[in-house]
Amino acid sequence: MMTVTRRETFSASHRLYNPAFSDAQNEAVFDKCNNPNGHGHNYELEVTVEGPVHPDTGYVVDLKQLKEVIRREVIAKVDHKHLNHDVEFLRGVIPTAENIALAIWKVLAERIPSGQLVSVRLRETENNVVEVRGGK
Amino acid sequence: MMTVTRRETFSASHRLYNPAFSDAQNEAVFDKCNNPNGHGHNYELEVTVEGPVHPDTGYVVDLKQLKEVIRREVIAKVDHKHLNHDVEFLRGVIPTAENIALAIWKVLAERIPSGQLVSVRLRETENNVVEVRGGK
Amino acid sequence: MMTVTRRETFSASHRLYNPAFSDAQNEAVFDKCNNPNGHGHNYELEVTVEGPVHPDTGYVVDLKQLKEVIRREVIAKVDHKHLNHDVEFLRGVIPTAENIALAIWKVLAERIPSGQLVSVRLRETENNVVEVRGGK
Amino acid sequence: MMTVTRRETFSASHRLYNPAFSDAQNEAVFDKCNNPNGHGHNYELEVTVEGPVHPDTGYVVDLKQLKEVIRREVIAKVDHKHLNHDVEFLRGVIPTAENIALAIWKVLAERIPSGQLVSVRLRETENNVVEVRGGK
Amino acid sequence: MMTVTRRETFSASHRLYNPAFSDAQNEAVFDKCNNPNGHGHNYELEVTVEGPVHPDTGYVVDLKQLKEVIRREVIAKVDHKHLNHDVEFLRGVIPTAENIALAIWKVLAERIPSGQLVSVRLRETENNVVEVRGGK
Amino acid sequence: MMTVTRRETFSASHRLYNPAFSDAQNEAVFDKCNNPNGHGHNYELEVTVEGPVHPDTGYVVDLKQLKEVIRREVIAKVDHKHLNHDVEFLRGVIPTAENIALAIWKVLAERIPSGQLVSVRLRETENNVVEVRGGK
Repeated sequence: MMTVTRRETFSASHRLYNPAFSDAQNEAVFDKCNNPNGHGHNYELEVTVEGPVHPDTGYVVDLKQLKEVIRREVIAKVDHKHLNHDVEFLRGVIPTAENIALAIWKVLAERIPSGQLVSVRLRETENNVVEVRGGK
Repeated sequence: MMTVTRRETFSASHRLYNPAFSDAQNEAVFDKCNNPNGHGHNYELEVTVEGPVHPDTGYVVDLKQLKEVIRREVIAKVDHKHLNHDVEFLRGVIPTAENIALAIWKVLAERIPSGQLVSVRLRETENNVVEVRGGK
Repeated sequence: MMTVTRRETFSASHRLYNPAFSDAQNEAVFDKCNNPNGHGHNYELEVTVEGPVHPDTGYVVDLKQLKEVIRREVIAKVDHKHLNHDVEFLRGVIPTAENIALAIWKVLAERIPSGQLVSVRLRETENNVVEVRGGK
Repeated sequence: MMTVTRRETFSASHRLYNPAFSDAQNEAVFDKCNNPNGHGHNYELEVTVEGPVHPDTGYVVDLKQLKEVIRREVIAKVDHKHLNHDVEFLRGVIPTAENIALAIWKVLAERIPSGQLVSVRLRETENNVVEVRGGK
Repeated sequence: MMTVTRRETFSASHRLYNPAFSDAQNEAVFDKCNNPNGHGHNYELEVTVEGPVHPDTGYVVDLKQLKEVIRREVIAKVDHKHLNHDVEFLRGVIPTAENIALAIWKVLAERIPSGQLVSVRLRETENNVVEVRGGK
Repeated sequence: MMTVTRRETFSASHRLYNPAFSDAQNEAVFDKCNNPNGHGHNYELEVTVEGPVHPDTGYVVDLKQLKEVIRREVIAKVDHKHLNHDVEFLRGVIPTAENIALAIWKVLAERIPSGQLVSVRLRETENNVVEVRGGK
């Protein structure tokens, strides 16, 4: 089993709150992440694909193509953006790290040029990271 | 499958030796880790839990609660301590990275606020890391 | 000459624009940092003080006190905040890394418990960092 | 389940091209990695072994022995070398990260002193990493 | 005093030898860096400029312009190259980290868009780094 | 002006206390660093030397020699040791990061093979670092 992982970064802001919650509930659940004016992070995204090594190229996947797909479909849409307001694929979603990673998984799953998407890992701070894993 | 990982750090000292071994055996097995006065490390602990994303919060687990559990049950007991002498949950154990990680797993397995503990990863130096994995 | 450096981190959002500029000028100068809804970063702050080593303690400065000053006077006011709207000591300032570092310098210069403030270093992304240096 | 991981580093150069390809194909597939004079990287190698913790030592594997095996069988042969020309175990292979990792797996699989090899991870740049996983 | 630092990376190969030396001298002085087929590194370049903060922009220098200058004048010429053979501005120079940094300083000193170049820092491995400093 | 920096690491334990202080004073000043059984760290040491680049070698200093001096004179004496008990050059010193760095400076200042020692930087944790600077 061989996997290849590509790291990309983006900087974005967000605010965590659920419009169905009362202010007190939002405060209790989301705490300082509920600050009305929002806050932000440097996100670190790691996308992992799995597959056989092609004998003619020694590649599981052309990393140049994988990089371009990630940059065009994800980074260009979230970098220097407000994740609650500016991102089509996050519309209606509370932009927790979990939900952002899930949404990125959905965006990438059909567009990965070769190999099979097996993991989307999103580091929000040096202490917090989430990972969506899939595959067969 | 979604996982959430929280990183915490602590600084501690230890000495590796087995009281059932002769001095020569301890020297042969544990080498410079057997220095009678001990030595120490900045440990990096990563705790991973798995579970579904709650639709009302976008969280697998409230990271604030997870952080508090790790800090209260583990970090407060090992940070700035001697792992052979000062830590109740390491009593009678040779404090190798493997045994420390196993002991932390046991401490946390019943106290994780939600989700299911799937990994305890302990980095002892920039070159050495151990991981306990569990789950179904 | 001896210096001691303390690192702290915070996560915040900001938008770069000059109200005296036209939209086109703001766009030209600040580019994607001018996104109306803002964006954000994990900032890494390093505060350096200089002084003689006290013979009774072996310390230039009590790092516990230095940490508390930085956390109370800076981190508590900028972490999980919007730097254009939520921070008194940044009122009226375009929150570039340069201006944030200068403002933090001013906040800390009079409150450092011992030693002399010689540097405030602010890393905005893994590729961009600014530093204010002072001293005699 | 317990794993232990050892990190080692090496610096090497390589050129990606397939002698069965035309120049235009090599250019199209390998792009700037096809530069005739080659280029190079600081590689970061992580070798993971799995096994039970030995009750007398608290070790899955003696890391000193694991380190020596990795250094003697791999690092000594690739560090400060040209991977296309100087390395016996890469003879006839296009030295992509994938193929280097596979070759290192084969070298190590029979020589690991105890435990079972479960992963060889090779980071080629801060943005690109491959991993071979095996086991039962 | 305010400085702004931009980090960029490149991957290149080189061989250290002095054509005026005998083989034995080259071996004695350059050791494994003298391998005839060369070896390589992921270089990390940090360029620091100094200057006043412009009151209208909050910038010492437009980092977008600084980045473009570094990428066009340096990175495009050294990334995925052999530093002994492929780089005009290193012609006739033994490509030690010191000499590469000096050559990059000369390339950048006249082209920095604003502010004054004060440091070129080049990290060759995680353990070795050189720095050229200048200024008034 | 050209500098060259070499990084080395060591793991050690220590206890901060002043025998001339009462227990209450030691507690007040050194807090959790005063734990009677001690604690420890992975220390990161950066040694910087300055000098002209030798035209025949492109080196300020032969890093192989610098590395050997640091390893023989410092690392071999502090790695896997207790800094209060096991280290001759720290005898009678409260082993704060400041005092360790000063002692390392004194050890190295006369033994640096070429160039002039200008900085000894000691990182005790990811958040705390001290630096001794000298020179003309």
